[in-house]
Amino acid sequence: MTPTGEVVLGIDPGTAVTGYGVVRRDARGTPSLVECGVIRTRADQALPRRLHEIHEGVSELIARHRPTTLSVEGVFYAKNVRTTVVLGHTRGVILLAGEAAGLRITEFSPAEIKKAIVGRGAATKEQVQFMVAQLLRLKSPPQPADAADGVAAALCALLGAQLPTLDSLPTLRRPTPSSPRRS
Amino acid sequence: MTPTGEVVLGIDPGTAVTGYGVVRRDARGTPSLVECGVIRTRADQALPRRLHEIHEGVSELIARHRPTTLSVEGVFYAKNVRTTVVLGHTRGVILLAGEAAGLRITEFSPAEIKKAIVGRGAATKEQVQFMVAQLLRLKSPPQPADAADGVAAALCALLGAQLPTLDSLPTLRRPTPSSPRRS
Repeated sequence: MTPTGEVVLGIDPGTAVTGYGVVRRDARGTPSLVECGVIRTRADQALPRRLHEIHEGVSELIARHRPTTLSVEGVFYAKNVRTTVVLGHTRGVILLAGEAAGLRITEFSPAEIKKAIVGRGAATKEQVQFMVAQLLRLKSPPQPADAADGVAAALCALLGAQLPTLDSLPTLRRPTPSSPRRS
Repeated sequence: MTPTGEVVLGIDPGTAVTGYGVVRRDARGTPSLVECGVIRTRADQALPRRLHEIHEGVSELIARHRPTTLSVEGVFYAKNVRTTVVLGHTRGVILLAGEAAGLRITEFSPAEIKKAIVGRGAATKEQVQFMVAQLLRLKSPPQPADAADGVAAALCALLGAQLPTLDSLPTLRRPTPSSPRRS
């Protein structure tokens, strides 16, 4: 739980596309979206150059929005171990940017974020996006999907257990994803 | 191959202990050890803090010795995937420090380093340490072992194929490790 008025920077790390979302909670406890987007790096560049760009991008977001908390999505253990290890490099420079700025750093697994936002650790991507839009009173989920994942990580840290879940909002239209996936 | 007089910083990344070695090649092509040691972090500290200390340590070495090349030992895929992923975080902040300083960055797998230093990719740690001491005209291998591994990474980048191998030094006393291990 964070103090009123707090700003959280949420990050969904990826070597090619890192999604981010900046969410603020006002004095009444209502969360609102400040900014979201993605940091893209080019696959034809060497890994150190890509890491540098991600680190610069995250550091710039921290300098601009002055969050008190950095919320980073945990490692998803991909089938390809090499992919997971490269993702570790990316997370390393993101955590470094937060630590260097003196931020409180929280890490949530993908399942924890889904559980917090939707109420189920096995929720689909579409359900997470739907709830993110509902919680922030957006007409549609943040785009691209990686940005929405960054926003979800921020919401997870900002509101934690106080979030309403998909199941507690029975009067809302629920998304009916065409291809349910389990994490 | 690097130009004459070049200084290389070699790093053996580890979250708990990161070994490093600074090696200079003089105008005649002879390598000499400038400094070696380890950066230790405490296991009871959070990962972001440990990453920050490793990044600061490497950045400080770069500022002090002004190497033109950073040579980093590649990922060893541990049996424990989590260990390998955390090591990825550590490598990420090390590569970042080199990239931010504009260094040429080379990466070698553990087997490539053994092959370059000893002549065999399956060389033992003791054989690597013996050859590192021979090449740098040291009375004994650098201590601790992680520091020697950092020096080996630096030598690998500095001299590459021009290194003599264990097999090409028949008149030298060879180490007879008590417990040969294969990588």
